[in-house]
Amino acid sequence: MTPQPQPQLQPLPPFKPDLHAPIERVDIALSEGRSYPIWIGPELWSNPDTWRALPKARLALIVSNTVVAPLYAQHLMNALKAHYERVELLVLPDGEGHKTWLTLNSIFDHLLGAGADRKTVLFALGGGVVGDITGFAAACFMRGVPFVQVPTTLLAQVDSSVGGKTAVNHPLGKNMVGAFYQPVQVVCDLGVLQTLPARELSAGLAEIIKYGPIADMAFLDWLDTHLTSLINKDPQALAVAVKRSCEIKAWVVSQDEKEGGLRAILNFGHTFGHAIESGLGFGEWLHGEAVGCGMVMACELSHALGLVDRAFVHRMTELITKAGLPTRAPDLGLETFLEHMSHDKKAVGGEIQFVVIKRPGEAVVCKAPQALVQKVIETCTSP
Amino acid sequence: MTPQPQPQLQPLPPFKPDLHAPIERVDIALSEGRSYPIWIGPELWSNPDTWRALPKARLALIVSNTVVAPLYAQHLMNALKAHYERVELLVLPDGEGHKTWLTLNSIFDHLLGAGADRKTVLFALGGGVVGDITGFAAACFMRGVPFVQVPTTLLAQVDSSVGGKTAVNHPLGKNMVGAFYQPVQVVCDLGVLQTLPARELSAGLAEIIKYGPIADMAFLDWLDTHLTSLINKDPQALAVAVKRSCEIKAWVVSQDEKEGGLRAILNFGHTFGHAIESGLGFGEWLHGEAVGCGMVMACELSHALGLVDRAFVHRMTELITKAGLPTRAPDLGLETFLEHMSHDKKAVGGEIQFVVIKRPGEAVVCKAPQALVQKVIETCTSP
Repeated sequence: MTPQPQPQLQPLPPFKPDLHAPIERVDIALSEGRSYPIWIGPELWSNPDTWRALPKARLALIVSNTVVAPLYAQHLMNALKAHYERVELLVLPDGEGHKTWLTLNSIFDHLLGAGADRKTVLFALGGGVVGDITGFAAACFMRGVPFVQVPTTLLAQVDSSVGGKTAVNHPLGKNMVGAFYQPVQVVCDLGVLQTLPARELSAGLAEIIKYGPIADMAFLDWLDTHLTSLINKDPQALAVAVKRSCEIKAWVVSQDEKEGGLRAILNFGHTFGHAIESGLGFGEWLHGEAVGCGMVMACELSHALGLVDRAFVHRMTELITKAGLPTRAPDLGLETFLEHMSHDKKAVGGEIQFVVIKRPGEAVVCKAPQALVQKVIETCTSP
Repeated sequence: MTPQPQPQLQPLPPFKPDLHAPIERVDIALSEGRSYPIWIGPELWSNPDTWRALPKARLALIVSNTVVAPLYAQHLMNALKAHYERVELLVLPDGEGHKTWLTLNSIFDHLLGAGADRKTVLFALGGGVVGDITGFAAACFMRGVPFVQVPTTLLAQVDSSVGGKTAVNHPLGKNMVGAFYQPVQVVCDLGVLQTLPARELSAGLAEIIKYGPIADMAFLDWLDTHLTSLINKDPQALAVAVKRSCEIKAWVVSQDEKEGGLRAILNFGHTFGHAIESGLGFGEWLHGEAVGCGMVMACELSHALGLVDRAFVHRMTELITKAGLPTRAPDLGLETFLEHMSHDKKAVGGEIQFVVIKRPGEAVVCKAPQALVQKVIETCTSP
């Protein structure tokens, strides 16, 4: 293996779980006026303070999907009506399979039909798919309009809504076409998680668990202890998990916005995971499910490379299982698996790059001998 | 009218025409490592110095069109073969009517089919359409890969290839979907202009003439004297005109990359021009032709607002006519004309913003009374 050199890092602020904070704020610090806050707490939407700092405009467009809109669109529209002359709603079809050009174009059609201009603000109300596609629409419409992330899934609150990665899928690979484009604000209302189906909650737990092995073993210890509370949607446990996840993501993104190096560690479990997602066809497994299984595979690879011991792999596999996530890969066939991994955006000249655990709490990007990778795929695939 | 306040500007460097410089360099100065050079001169492609500073990659993709590729693609491929393991060519259909999602997607399909990665370099070989669409593809593919502008039309060399505006058209408006995304280099080989059809040359002259009234009357005086040389493709006159145009554009873009204010003056003639283009259907008139006529209309509006005298309007109309450009608008009907202008990206809340000449050599963005605008459209429309 040939680890890539990494620049000197700022230390990660220590983990200080506070089970009694009402509203939390985490900041993404970036240059050129692109810094923004993430608000985390209960009942944020109906609090006028939440929306006070937003840019002024005549028109706001809420983009949501067929599952989330019936539950929450009216509530958000009411909250925003005090701030905009017109608040419109566009409801997209639900699911990763619709994260395409076609759906993206329907946003542009709606915006132009509604007389949107460069000041129009977009609100992404939904999970990762809605956030990614709405963010990309905001990045491209008239070469960039402001947008706000209002994530309604655990996965979106702890990962996809933060950091400015936006994209649509291409039949040959996930998130192949997109932009780095930061929201002006992220609003993580914890109340909406109470209606989240168990499968979606588990998918979010995958991205939360991820932050432990790559950056913060104290947080992983806390997760071991509090996983049941999280599965039971304990509001205070959720607040701690969402905040710490956002803190770690902010720490990474503030140092490497456009993935020149460090940011790639956030893709732990994603190289295997993306291959599962595109190999099965987008939408078959949830993204978080594929990442859960992908993390097990990446832990196995880390062990095969001699970086972590078997006990660590076992601990991670146990936690991922307990979170309700798959730990066995679907049988795509070795060829297909490798082919899909070679389209990963981290690949350079066809050579796949993996995020592995260098030691518990620290990740690194590296190549790996093909024989080891094959062995991991074979070991982890369901018979 | 209500002119918008403008920040204190850096002075424009004085116009110093040098009819004997072999190779000229103009720099676009931007933050965060996004500065880049524009090379202007004869025989640049076959000069290895031209390509020496480009980023390393295994694969380069030249994107061109059915008109330019047969003339120049092989020449450029040969020049690049020393720098990349593989140099591929993708030929797009020609014309503004193809500056669409569909064509853009064909670039992504080709890139993924060819095993492109984040280091792959795109080369836009052609005019404004090829440059805009290739630049937008580079902005979005894997969230951004490097690209080089190799403009082959006069219009692209003096305007569209410089400054990082990339886009595709939407049926409801020109350049509605795009990105600010800078090339790593612009290579303006003057030799390729010798095969340019007269109509395309005139279209380029429109954007060159534009720089006079908005920023540099000394340059407009020079154009009055040297227009015939330019029409006759005198290499040294072309070198002066391309360099000065790039200097003025660099002066603007370096101070306002994302069109927060100043940059809008580059749209002189474009509000009326875009309405003509989308009103007739993209591709009916060349962009430069629509801008030529649009500048006459914007001069008439400036006069109607009491900003410039009739002699100035007359002088501009004469020069635009002499450049072989239309000065009478097609009869779209007043309603259609206004409707298309209201979709202009400068419009805010449906109110159209115009770039007018405040005094010769200085432009300003402002609203205008609808009655005056209607009168200008009526006055300037062919019976």
